[in-house]
Amino acid sequence: MNRKFYNAHHAPVGAFATLTLGQKGSTGGLGLELAGPANENLYVGIQDRDGGSFRALPFFTGGESHEEDFDVEHLSGFGRPNAVTAFADEEIERTMGAGVDEWRAGDMVFRLISPVRSVPDPETATVEALKTAITPAILAELTIDNREGTTSRKVFFGYQGSDRAAGMRVIKEPGLTGIAQHTFTAIASDDPAVHAGIAFQPEKVLEPDTEENLEFLVGRLGLLVGTVPAGQIHTFRFAIAFFREGTATTGIKTRYLYRRFFNDIESVLRDALKGFEATKHEAEAFDAQLQSRLSPERAWMAAHAIRSYFGSTQLLEREDGQPLWVVNEGEYRMMNTFDLTIDQAFFELVLNPWTVRNVLDLYVERYAYEDGARFPGSDEVHPAGIAFTHDMGVGNAFSRPGYSGYEQARLKGCFSYMSVEELMNWVLTAGLYDSHTRDMAWAISQRETFLASLRSLVNRDNPTPADRNGVVGLDADRCQGGAEITTYDSLDASLGQARNNLYLAVKGWASYLLLEDVLRRLDEVEAANEAKEQAAKAAQTIMSAANEEGLLPAVIGEGVEARIIPAIEALVYPFALGLEIDPELQATLSKHLSAVLKPGICKFADGGWKLSSTSRNSWLSKIYLCQFVAERVLGFAADAEADVAHVNWLLDEENAYFAWSDQMLQGKAVGSRYYPRGVTSILWAATGENPLAELAKAFGHTEQPVA
Amino acid sequence: MNRKFYNAHHAPVGAFATLTLGQKGSTGGLGLELAGPANENLYVGIQDRDGGSFRALPFFTGGESHEEDFDVEHLSGFGRPNAVTAFADEEIERTMGAGVDEWRAGDMVFRLISPVRSVPDPETATVEALKTAITPAILAELTIDNREGTTSRKVFFGYQGSDRAAGMRVIKEPGLTGIAQHTFTAIASDDPAVHAGIAFQPEKVLEPDTEENLEFLVGRLGLLVGTVPAGQIHTFRFAIAFFREGTATTGIKTRYLYRRFFNDIESVLRDALKGFEATKHEAEAFDAQLQSRLSPERAWMAAHAIRSYFGSTQLLEREDGQPLWVVNEGEYRMMNTFDLTIDQAFFELVLNPWTVRNVLDLYVERYAYEDGARFPGSDEVHPAGIAFTHDMGVGNAFSRPGYSGYEQARLKGCFSYMSVEELMNWVLTAGLYDSHTRDMAWAISQRETFLASLRSLVNRDNPTPADRNGVVGLDADRCQGGAEITTYDSLDASLGQARNNLYLAVKGWASYLLLEDVLRRLDEVEAANEAKEQAAKAAQTIMSAANEEGLLPAVIGEGVEARIIPAIEALVYPFALGLEIDPELQATLSKHLSAVLKPGICKFADGGWKLSSTSRNSWLSKIYLCQFVAERVLGFAADAEADVAHVNWLLDEENAYFAWSDQMLQGKAVGSRYYPRGVTSILWAATGENPLAELAKAFGHTEQPVA
Repeated sequence: MNRKFYNAHHAPVGAFATLTLGQKGSTGGLGLELAGPANENLYVGIQDRDGGSFRALPFFTGGESHEEDFDVEHLSGFGRPNAVTAFADEEIERTMGAGVDEWRAGDMVFRLISPVRSVPDPETATVEALKTAITPAILAELTIDNREGTTSRKVFFGYQGSDRAAGMRVIKEPGLTGIAQHTFTAIASDDPAVHAGIAFQPEKVLEPDTEENLEFLVGRLGLLVGTVPAGQIHTFRFAIAFFREGTATTGIKTRYLYRRFFNDIESVLRDALKGFEATKHEAEAFDAQLQSRLSPERAWMAAHAIRSYFGSTQLLEREDGQPLWVVNEGEYRMMNTFDLTIDQAFFELVLNPWTVRNVLDLYVERYAYEDGARFPGSDEVHPAGIAFTHDMGVGNAFSRPGYSGYEQARLKGCFSYMSVEELMNWVLTAGLYDSHTRDMAWAISQRETFLASLRSLVNRDNPTPADRNGVVGLDADRCQGGAEITTYDSLDASLGQARNNLYLAVKGWASYLLLEDVLRRLDEVEAANEAKEQAAKAAQTIMSAANEEGLLPAVIGEGVEARIIPAIEALVYPFALGLEIDPELQATLSKHLSAVLKPGICKFADGGWKLSSTSRNSWLSKIYLCQFVAERVLGFAADAEADVAHVNWLLDEENAYFAWSDQMLQGKAVGSRYYPRGVTSILWAATGENPLAELAKAFGHTEQPVA
Repeated sequence: MNRKFYNAHHAPVGAFATLTLGQKGSTGGLGLELAGPANENLYVGIQDRDGGSFRALPFFTGGESHEEDFDVEHLSGFGRPNAVTAFADEEIERTMGAGVDEWRAGDMVFRLISPVRSVPDPETATVEALKTAITPAILAELTIDNREGTTSRKVFFGYQGSDRAAGMRVIKEPGLTGIAQHTFTAIASDDPAVHAGIAFQPEKVLEPDTEENLEFLVGRLGLLVGTVPAGQIHTFRFAIAFFREGTATTGIKTRYLYRRFFNDIESVLRDALKGFEATKHEAEAFDAQLQSRLSPERAWMAAHAIRSYFGSTQLLEREDGQPLWVVNEGEYRMMNTFDLTIDQAFFELVLNPWTVRNVLDLYVERYAYEDGARFPGSDEVHPAGIAFTHDMGVGNAFSRPGYSGYEQARLKGCFSYMSVEELMNWVLTAGLYDSHTRDMAWAISQRETFLASLRSLVNRDNPTPADRNGVVGLDADRCQGGAEITTYDSLDASLGQARNNLYLAVKGWASYLLLEDVLRRLDEVEAANEAKEQAAKAAQTIMSAANEEGLLPAVIGEGVEARIIPAIEALVYPFALGLEIDPELQATLSKHLSAVLKPGICKFADGGWKLSSTSRNSWLSKIYLCQFVAERVLGFAADAEADVAHVNWLLDEENAYFAWSDQMLQGKAVGSRYYPRGVTSILWAATGENPLAELAKAFGHTEQPVA
């Protein structure tokens, strides 16, 4: 935990925007809808006590003046000697929660404050509550302690906007001084002691030749500068805002929902500054909760993950005014990828359950499809039924109805269809939502979807009722002869193939349990009984697959002897709902986990968890989830050594550029970087029998469940 | 002229948008509001006769699949072997005019057609005429001659959008098949034989496994594919469109004026395709005119320059509906830089005089300022009067009223104020507009500006009437003790310093002549007489500065003995207006030019013109202008050797990336790259006594002069 130079998101809610910061060099910056960090110079610093030079956090490389593009023969002598240098590494301390990220260096304290808050349901919230929750800005405090100083000293904060379509500008309005790149990004203060400037180099704004020279729009660096008299300590407040006009997404035409309230970035800045104290207290309260409930390693990982999640969120409004919630898939920017929706549902149910419902509804409206199924090697198509797509599109482009941006026919590996697992994902996410909110009106509205999902799941087991074993036995006809994969799409066959997969067998079992539960409440007795029966068959099939040592094969009955941790993953769903778990199945999975959770099988040399014994690729979001299941469902002790290993993966010098990342190949982030899914870690913070209700209470979800 | 791999703009009018293309590799692409080429892969090609492989123009580097970001252990075997290779250099022929750029290779012809047309005055034009003129799209024809083929063959055209905020998508509407990046850029066809796809690699769209796989939105390449049966020749038509919603500029809030007519990029594509034939014929007619009037070298340079100019144009609409015309300054993106406005005025007056008036009006409204003047080394401020800023802002950010984005106080070189030259620029540009259009109502409306300009020019000569010599003797007070520079800001003192500069002395003389002309027509007799007197003094001062060999010093009376070609530049203004030029002054300047236009003085070793004997930096736009003056005003023979040298500068391998560039340091483009100013070359095409009227007739400006 002693490394401090790693990028983290500092993001508002629902703006698909982030100030990513923390690694050294120009590796962070203000990003809008990006697949990775903005890679721009960012300057935060103070004047030395002796007044002669300036020290900054090391978030710049400089050297981007472009002066020589104008003064090609260097005749003007326009440039100034560098007076801004970085603090030495050892002078800098950093403390990061989910809300507040704080750096201390010399006489300076710099705090970035990200809103950590629920988004109220736009269809029922007051204008003021909704506006406050989704104001597309974060906040900063920059303190200089000049009590020992003998002269007035300056503080500064600025950036070199990297959007290629626009220059930098100054904002100068009554009560607001700022720098901006077009209408896209801005930093501003309401402090009257702050001045703003644009220049090639910070020195020109820190010590302008003359006030008239400050708006040198040819420059690419915007800087805000404040002055504090000798003997004083002063904190400057800033808002950092993001703004996107016009069409936000194609396919489904939307705009950002915050456009209801804001017509320009200046009004965003003003509102963010107005709500400064409330946002700060909310963020600090969230951090306090997290820290009181978790070990330092876990608190840090959860905070890091929550940041990356918020940076990927996008609250849109359709042309008819309906809200549309999107979580973008990190570096891939796939929209509402269902594999992520289900894992993030725990966190979203804690904060704002309506977003989960919103995504489920859009899956039913546009991203469900009817399909048949085939046995491997056969051309015969059997009836199957409803399934759901893997995602809703990529990079602000919604895909066509019934199709994801990802799935391709005629494949057996990565990019193949995930029909049956996405079907389970709908069922399980809907079950979580239904159980947590008791939103019975919604459950009733989805009666046909629940029934169709059960029918489709059963059909994909086996077309012949007598031959059903509760486990998926056919591939979607959409594959056109290819093979369905699981959402562990980049792992090897141990988690890749859907048919007879152990992980999916348990997930199917859980789906049947949750279907039984909701269908019984919907008074669909026959269907509920069928779901119960299928669950029992699945449990039986799984238990029968154990070998004499209690080990379960990754693929049942196909000779794939790899060992996988995610066999236990789906236990989380009945546990979260308080449903009874078959004690024999639980014992079987517990025994399996005990047997595999060892070096050489499902542990790396550093003690980190290895999801599959045969793949070097392990996913942190899933590890977090399985840790929760192991500890809370199966009663395993917390694995502190693993937590340390996982922290070290994230802090690895190369990985640290991508903020929180998921896919780790022997500890190296190779895919799913800059990723939102790590919020499964919120479950760690639950200690009681009803984790979602407990977490909602602790982390400030104040919405009442819908009657 | 045998090099063919150079970037050129292919741009609509007023959209600040361009398909830049022609250099090898991923150095071109669809750019919106950029300071340089978009650097994206672009694929244009055909299937080989044997059907096994595909050949494309060499505008791609490939290798951008990002497949490995998903399938991190390369388990899927998803990729296809490369089947698309580039034509060999020697197979490719290219012919470029201002409107049509044509490549021939094998059985393929690819033509990019850029609109070359007048923009009618938005305040008087019909909706239809205005809409047609500013539709933000260009066109393409892709022909495959499969008459010798024995199987059906495919053609393809596509790009890998480089905007970092969005993914690629497919457009599939009745009568329109396309690929797009968000709402920003798109290519589409109305040909029913075309299909569209998104993929990692072109092979997947050229030969899809199955039609359902074509919308793989995870891919970054969009491709359109058409098929032509054996024995046929077929031409596919495409539109390439650009679209920017929302606030276009800050400072002065505007949107693109085309937003009046278009709500999405799809409607732009449809309209562009609808007007295909008309746009094509217009472009071909323009090219024919250019080629009939100029040597191949000059026709090519003029065509190249016109393209770069159009790619920098931006027609906006203010919140009150008023049109606002901007030409962005190439790689610098300064807006309506006055130094460029005056040079581009010849071209704009030929095509659409209202744009010149529009810029002049905004200079008066917002970018004029009142100032004093000082003698060098003195703090005493003398009255001066009106001046104008260097530009109106940078990169879509209008600067604050009365200030440019460029000028800085307390300097003596690059980035200093250009007050007096920008004042002359207003006078001369206004004089050109007034004379060409005989828009007397406008001249009357600007009576006070003309009078104030005369007053200010005279004051900047000398505060004491008896000491006036017609030449600038003071520096603007805005310099705060620094020195004013000329708009030749990156050259050495020969053209850098404003005071007593020879180039500015002649430009001042011309300003007085034009002021006399317009003031006399405004019946301001006294002022007209004063202007005449100042012109005579200036002429006298200039003539007296000649040494015994007839050489004029670059700076008069200050011992700067450098020799400069632009001494003659300002002769163009009285010549264009048909005003009488003092024969003695003309003889003096002619003699000076004869004396300097020699190797070792104002010629480079390759025969190219060297603007200053003491600077290696020479500017093509100004060379073109001075060539016109030398030939048409002073009667020098055309310098064909110089033209060849100038062509070779532009075709230099490094320079060719930037399309047309201005500042050449011994033939290397070091500044003012990707630049609009080369349209001074349009003057080459005039042969008679009234160049602007003649060119307007030849190049299709059909607007009637305002009564």
